[in-house]
Amino acid sequence: MAQKPSIPKGTRDFGPEEMIKRTYIFDTIKSVFHTYGFLPLETPAMENLSTLLGKYGDEGDKLLFKVLNSGDFFKGVDTADLNEEKRNLLATKICEKGLRYDLTVPFARYVVQHQSEIAFPFRRYQIQPVWRADRPQKGRYREFYQCDVDIIGSRSLVNEVELIEIVAEVFRKLGIRITLKMNNRKILYGIAETIGHADKMIDITVAIDKLEKIGLEAVEEELSTKGISEESIAALRPILSLSGSYSEKLAALHEIIGGSETGVKGIEEMETIFALTEKIGTDLDIDLDLSLARGLNYYTGAIFEVKARDFAIGSICGGGRYDDLTGIFGMPNVSGVGISFGADRIYDVMCGLNLFPTDSGMTARALFLNLGGEELTASLIELKKLRSMGIPCEIYPDNAKMKKQMEYANRRAIPYVIIIGSDERASGQVSLKNMVSGEQKTIPTDALPEYLAVRE
Amino acid sequence: MAQKPSIPKGTRDFGPEEMIKRTYIFDTIKSVFHTYGFLPLETPAMENLSTLLGKYGDEGDKLLFKVLNSGDFFKGVDTADLNEEKRNLLATKICEKGLRYDLTVPFARYVVQHQSEIAFPFRRYQIQPVWRADRPQKGRYREFYQCDVDIIGSRSLVNEVELIEIVAEVFRKLGIRITLKMNNRKILYGIAETIGHADKMIDITVAIDKLEKIGLEAVEEELSTKGISEESIAALRPILSLSGSYSEKLAALHEIIGGSETGVKGIEEMETIFALTEKIGTDLDIDLDLSLARGLNYYTGAIFEVKARDFAIGSICGGGRYDDLTGIFGMPNVSGVGISFGADRIYDVMCGLNLFPTDSGMTARALFLNLGGEELTASLIELKKLRSMGIPCEIYPDNAKMKKQMEYANRRAIPYVIIIGSDERASGQVSLKNMVSGEQKTIPTDALPEYLAVRE
Repeated sequence: MAQKPSIPKGTRDFGPEEMIKRTYIFDTIKSVFHTYGFLPLETPAMENLSTLLGKYGDEGDKLLFKVLNSGDFFKGVDTADLNEEKRNLLATKICEKGLRYDLTVPFARYVVQHQSEIAFPFRRYQIQPVWRADRPQKGRYREFYQCDVDIIGSRSLVNEVELIEIVAEVFRKLGIRITLKMNNRKILYGIAETIGHADKMIDITVAIDKLEKIGLEAVEEELSTKGISEESIAALRPILSLSGSYSEKLAALHEIIGGSETGVKGIEEMETIFALTEKIGTDLDIDLDLSLARGLNYYTGAIFEVKARDFAIGSICGGGRYDDLTGIFGMPNVSGVGISFGADRIYDVMCGLNLFPTDSGMTARALFLNLGGEELTASLIELKKLRSMGIPCEIYPDNAKMKKQMEYANRRAIPYVIIIGSDERASGQVSLKNMVSGEQKTIPTDALPEYLAVRE
Repeated sequence: MAQKPSIPKGTRDFGPEEMIKRTYIFDTIKSVFHTYGFLPLETPAMENLSTLLGKYGDEGDKLLFKVLNSGDFFKGVDTADLNEEKRNLLATKICEKGLRYDLTVPFARYVVQHQSEIAFPFRRYQIQPVWRADRPQKGRYREFYQCDVDIIGSRSLVNEVELIEIVAEVFRKLGIRITLKMNNRKILYGIAETIGHADKMIDITVAIDKLEKIGLEAVEEELSTKGISEESIAALRPILSLSGSYSEKLAALHEIIGGSETGVKGIEEMETIFALTEKIGTDLDIDLDLSLARGLNYYTGAIFEVKARDFAIGSICGGGRYDDLTGIFGMPNVSGVGISFGADRIYDVMCGLNLFPTDSGMTARALFLNLGGEELTASLIELKKLRSMGIPCEIYPDNAKMKKQMEYANRRAIPYVIIIGSDERASGQVSLKNMVSGEQKTIPTDALPEYLAVRE
C-alpha cells in the first residue's frame, strides 16, 4: 500500500493541539451547565431510520447517512426495487439504521422512550457528533459536534431566563464579547396576522430572516413574489425599521400588533423574560431583533441567537421554545426550551481573537532527560513524585543524544527540561533548564514542584 | 406513530445517572494520562473502507458497519454484481465508508498520514466509541467506548514501565484492587521453538491462552489435534506449571528455553521491566503468567492484562508491544506499546463493588422552591450568587404545589431544598431543608454557601 491513507471528505482528525483547545471549550460549557443543574445524556450514533426519516424535510432525508444492514443485506430485494426512480425505497430496504443528523430528534426519542423514568422538568445537555451528507465546504463538515442544552416539561419563562444567564456565563468565561439577539415566534405570527397574512407566516419569516444579509429592498421583493400584497409590505416596513432598546421596541410593537391575541402574548412573554433578567442583574447586550426568525419550524415562542461582537462569523449559539417536540413520537403537549452552542465556530472565534489560555494544564510542564543507568532510575523516582502531586511531566524514553531530546521538548512546547546527571545525583540537586528563556540553573531536588508550578 | 420509539439492538442510551458514573471513570483515567504527558487525539467515526478492510481478518471484515454512499449509490452496479456469491463486492461498490472498528487502525492511519507533523515518540490517548456488527448479548454491544493509550516511535522499555505505573495509578484512583498479568511474545516464541514447534507458535499460544478457562488437560488435547507431538506437549507441561514470583519463574525459564535466542531476549526484556518497576517502587500485584497470550497477532514483546481481584469478570485492561503497526499503511519499523482500558467492564466492577463516590460534584446541591412573585426574584438572585461560586443548584421553574416541587427534589436526589418565602425575605434569611434527614432550619442567607459546601 504505497498510497498515503486519507479520511473521508468533510471529516477531520483532531490532533493534540486542536483537542486541547476543543476540550477547553467543552469543559467550560459543561462546568456552566453543571452549576445550572443540567446533567449529561448520550444517545447512540446509530438510530433506526424510522426514527430519523421525515423529521428534517425531504432535503434532510437526503442528507442522512444510512448504514448497510449486516449479513445478506440484499435478501428480499427484487428486480422491481432496482428501478432508478426507487432509490430511496431501495435504500430503506437494505439499510435499517442511520447516523444521527442532530441531537434534537434523538433527545425527543429518548424522552418518549424513557418518560416513566424521567423526573420532569428534565434538564439535560448533550455534546456529541452528528453526521450530514452535505457537500463539504469551508466551515461545513460531514461530521461535527453539537452541544445542546434543554429543559423539557415546563412552560415557565424562568427557563428562558436561565438560558439567557447560561449564554452570558459561558461567553464571559470563554472571553468572547457577544450580542444576544432575541425574538418571539408569537410576535412574528402577530405581525403576519396584523398585515393580513397569517396564512403566509412561514414565507414572511423566511424572507425577513434574510434582512441583515440582503437588505430591506430585496426582502420586500421576495415577499412580493410570495404573493404578499403591496399594502401588507408597506405595513411591515415600519415594524422592521423599529429601533431603540428592547423596551422601546416592545412598546411600539404593542401599538402596531395589539390587535393580534397571539402577538400580544408574544410581547408579554418577552416583557416577562426581560424584566426578570434585569431584576437578577445582567451586563449582557440583549437586542430584540424583529427580523430574527430562525429556520426551524418547531419553535413556538422565544427564540435566541448569539453573535460575536469582535469577530465576523455567523451565529455562534442559538435556540428557542418549542411546544411539541415529542409529538412526532406520540407524546403530545410537552413544552421545552433549549439552545445549542456551535463549537466549531466558537473555536474559530477564539483562535481569531487569540482567546485560548497559553497553558491548558494538560500539557507536560517538564521533560526529564534520559541519561540511562542509575541516572535514569533517579529521574524516574523524581518524575513519579511530581506526577503524584498532579504535575504533568514526562521522560524521554530513549537514552538518545542530548540534542535530540532537547529538540523533542521544543517540538512538544514543554517549558522545562530537567537533567539529573551523576553530579546532580551526588548532591541531591537537579539542573533545570527554562526552554523559553534558555536559562539553566541548579536547584535542590525538593524545590522542583515550586519551580514547575509557576506559570509564566 | 403509536408505537414507542426504540434504538437499534446492541446500542444504548446513557441517561444522567450512568453518564455521571461513566464521566467519573473517563475523567479519572484522563487525569492520570495527563500527568504522564499523554495528550488526546480524536479521529472521525467514518473511515474509508479501504483503510479498514483486511485489518481484522475475514471475521472482522464481516463485522464492519458500512455506510451507504450518498446520491445515486446504485450507479455503476450491473446485474453481474447482484450474484448472491458476490455480496461483499456489491457492498464495497455501494459503500465507500465504514464505521471504525477499533481505535488502533485509525491511530496507525493518523500516524502515517501526519508523520511529518508529529514529534516522535508520540504519546497519545484516544477515548471514542467503536462499532461492531457483532451478535448483541450480555456485556457485548454494537457500540462501545474504547480508551487507548499508546507511545509510538520508541523501543525503550521505559515505556512499558510507564504503562505499568499508569495501570497502578488509574486503578488506585478508582479504588479497584487488581492483579497485573504480564507475559512476553518473545518468551512464547522461545517456548514454541524449544519444544520444536516454532512454526506452530500461533496454535500453541491460542491453546495455552485457554488454560485458565478449560484446564491443562483440555489444552493438551487441543495441542494434540493441532499436530503437536506427545513429546512436545510433555516438554511444555513443566513450563505451564511453573510457580512462584516472577523472578523465580524467569530464572526457571532461563534453564528451560535458554537455547532460544528470541526466548532469552524476551526473558531479558521482562527482567529489565520488572527491575526498573521495583526500583521506582510499586505496590502492584504483578504476575508473570506464561499462559497469557492475548489474541491480537500484532504483539511482538511484553503483553499486559489486568484482572479485578474482588469481582469476577474478564480482563478490564490489556495491551502490549507491537513492532509494526503502521507497516500496513506503508510506514515500516515503527515500534510502539499501548494499553486499552475496558470502560464498560470497569463500570460493572465499580457498580458491583459500590466504588462510585456518592457525590459526583456534578449534581445540584440544592433546589430553590418557586413561590412566584417577589419571592421568585429573591430566590433567583440568591441562586445566581451560589452558582457564581461554582455550587451547582437550580430552581423549580414553575410555581407549582410545594409537594410537587419537593417530589422533584427527591426524584433528582438533590440533598437540600431552599425556601425563600415572604418572612424569610423580610428577615434576610432562608429556610434550608435537608432532604435526607428531613431536618429544616432557618439560617442567614449569607451562611448558605457554607452549609451547602459540607458533603455528608
